[in-house]
Amino acid sequence: MAQPSRPVTRTASDVAALVEGARAGRPRAVARLITLIENGSPQLREVLRALAPDTGRAIVIGLTGSPGVGKSTTTTALVSALRERGERVGVLAVDPSSPFTGGALLGDRIRMQQHTLDPEVFIRSMATRGHLGGLAAAAPQALRVFDAAGCGVVVVETVGVGQSEVEIAGLADVTLVLVAPGMGDGIQAAKAGILEVGDVFVVNKADRDGAQAVVRDLRNMVAMADRAATEWKPPVLTTVASRGEGTDALLGAIDRFVEHARADGNWQRRRTARAAREVEAIALGELRSRFRVDGHAGLASLAEAVRDGRLDPYSASDELVAQLGEP
Amino acid sequence: MAQPSRPVTRTASDVAALVEGARAGRPRAVARLITLIENGSPQLREVLRALAPDTGRAIVIGLTGSPGVGKSTTTTALVSALRERGERVGVLAVDPSSPFTGGALLGDRIRMQQHTLDPEVFIRSMATRGHLGGLAAAAPQALRVFDAAGCGVVVVETVGVGQSEVEIAGLADVTLVLVAPGMGDGIQAAKAGILEVGDVFVVNKADRDGAQAVVRDLRNMVAMADRAATEWKPPVLTTVASRGEGTDALLGAIDRFVEHARADGNWQRRRTARAAREVEAIALGELRSRFRVDGHAGLASLAEAVRDGRLDPYSASDELVAQLGEP
Repeated sequence: MAQPSRPVTRTASDVAALVEGARAGRPRAVARLITLIENGSPQLREVLRALAPDTGRAIVIGLTGSPGVGKSTTTTALVSALRERGERVGVLAVDPSSPFTGGALLGDRIRMQQHTLDPEVFIRSMATRGHLGGLAAAAPQALRVFDAAGCGVVVVETVGVGQSEVEIAGLADVTLVLVAPGMGDGIQAAKAGILEVGDVFVVNKADRDGAQAVVRDLRNMVAMADRAATEWKPPVLTTVASRGEGTDALLGAIDRFVEHARADGNWQRRRTARAAREVEAIALGELRSRFRVDGHAGLASLAEAVRDGRLDPYSASDELVAQLGEP
Repeated sequence: MAQPSRPVTRTASDVAALVEGARAGRPRAVARLITLIENGSPQLREVLRALAPDTGRAIVIGLTGSPGVGKSTTTTALVSALRERGERVGVLAVDPSSPFTGGALLGDRIRMQQHTLDPEVFIRSMATRGHLGGLAAAAPQALRVFDAAGCGVVVVETVGVGQSEVEIAGLADVTLVLVAPGMGDGIQAAKAGILEVGDVFVVNKADRDGAQAVVRDLRNMVAMADRAATEWKPPVLTTVASRGEGTDALLGAIDRFVEHARADGNWQRRRTARAAREVEAIALGELRSRFRVDGHAGLASLAEAVRDGRLDPYSASDELVAQLGEP
């Protein structure tokens, strides 16, 4: 089933056709546009300009948790429930530990088997390890493609290591934090600060020993957080995702969160902040590339001066920034 | 033994005294300067300007590996061996999973117990979780302080998750990758791309079952990598760090790497690249803060336009960058 590899650069009419295809919800066009985005193709700008008017509609659900808590199973269960509602659904599985990316990874095919043949479900895996800018660079643009392709909901799934769950929360309209009994996740949660990013907590594998203790711990931690009476209070739910148990209640909690966030303005605030981070990241990338241009003597000679102790890095940075204004 | 907390802002003479103290190798002055750096104190620039002429001498050893392979034990063993050579040594333990930082963490005190009372050993832990810019922002400056304080060697230790070992390799003159038997690290190594960052591979806990298989796997992988005959070929060593076994051979391998890198120019190239990244990171941070200045309408209104689909993020970025040149 693997696609033959294709050239990254395409003609303008080629790109226009892909954009039209994505707008019409054709999976292959969606996949190719995302590849184009991941490869940092020069046609990226054109694609996103064309897609912009069709964006802003999809609800982005972020899903994170330690390895083994059942993220893929939960995603699969959520996708099934959303399909029953008639939603077109996108899934972006972000793997921060892998340098391998693409739409045809064996893992996805196996894990999401029941949905891979559904033309209304777009599944994509994205590796961020070793990619410049990581999640921040390509994921928001990939979400725009799903969005413009008419997905009512996009699930972004990632393993919670390092900064990844903070990054996911930065991308998502609503963030689900998954834990499971017997993994010391209660304590982990507090340490890792996942409490701050979770809008909904899910104790999966709730049929196992210790599930109720995890629920209790999480509820206590949620209760201790300082929040106004009108603020959203993250619920702690239980699921057995492998049997689909608790999925409807989970979707219900997501619906309630969305309604609450829309009513109190948090929805718009988050989306504005997300767009600001995105624009900023692109601008910083552009400035970085200007620093690195061959023939721009700036950074290279400043770096040598810093290396040899002739200049401190802050003074060097001042000079570099000053040079941006020069012709 | 915990220090009372102190105000971050200091008078100019105060800072000058700290700089003098650090130059003289006084541990308290070193610790306070690093705190000042971590807090992003406005006096940072002044400190680094004053320290610049005394930097560039320390050899930075990066040490990374999965949880449980024995990083702290190996660091302790290395520090002991370096102390026997009469070196003043700095240790920077970077924890990407913790938001807690400082010089008086219980963990460090326990793990590095035998060195905490040695005035020629500076130990500092640094948390990067949730800190803007992570490792990239504060760690190089902390290394400068150790360097200016006369440390001949600084060991930077971090757990290998997400991007952290790539970041460590970017900071270090020589990078040690630790693995241990029974942790699936052979396969992990390939997957995670640690092969690319390791200058020396260490199979720790070599008295355990399976150690020789891990050595063999790593040697095969090293042998398969494409490199010129004159290029450094990373050795694969075995240690039992808890008993100090193999530490001398490890130091010997590090010495050989340093000699080799100095002879073939790789040493200077890496240090130039490191300085370039550092200057660039500071410049980008400065530009970011300009985008975010209150009253600078740019980013906020552009973000709203992107959020509402009136503008694509690349066009918004172009406008933002163009505004930098405006008064």
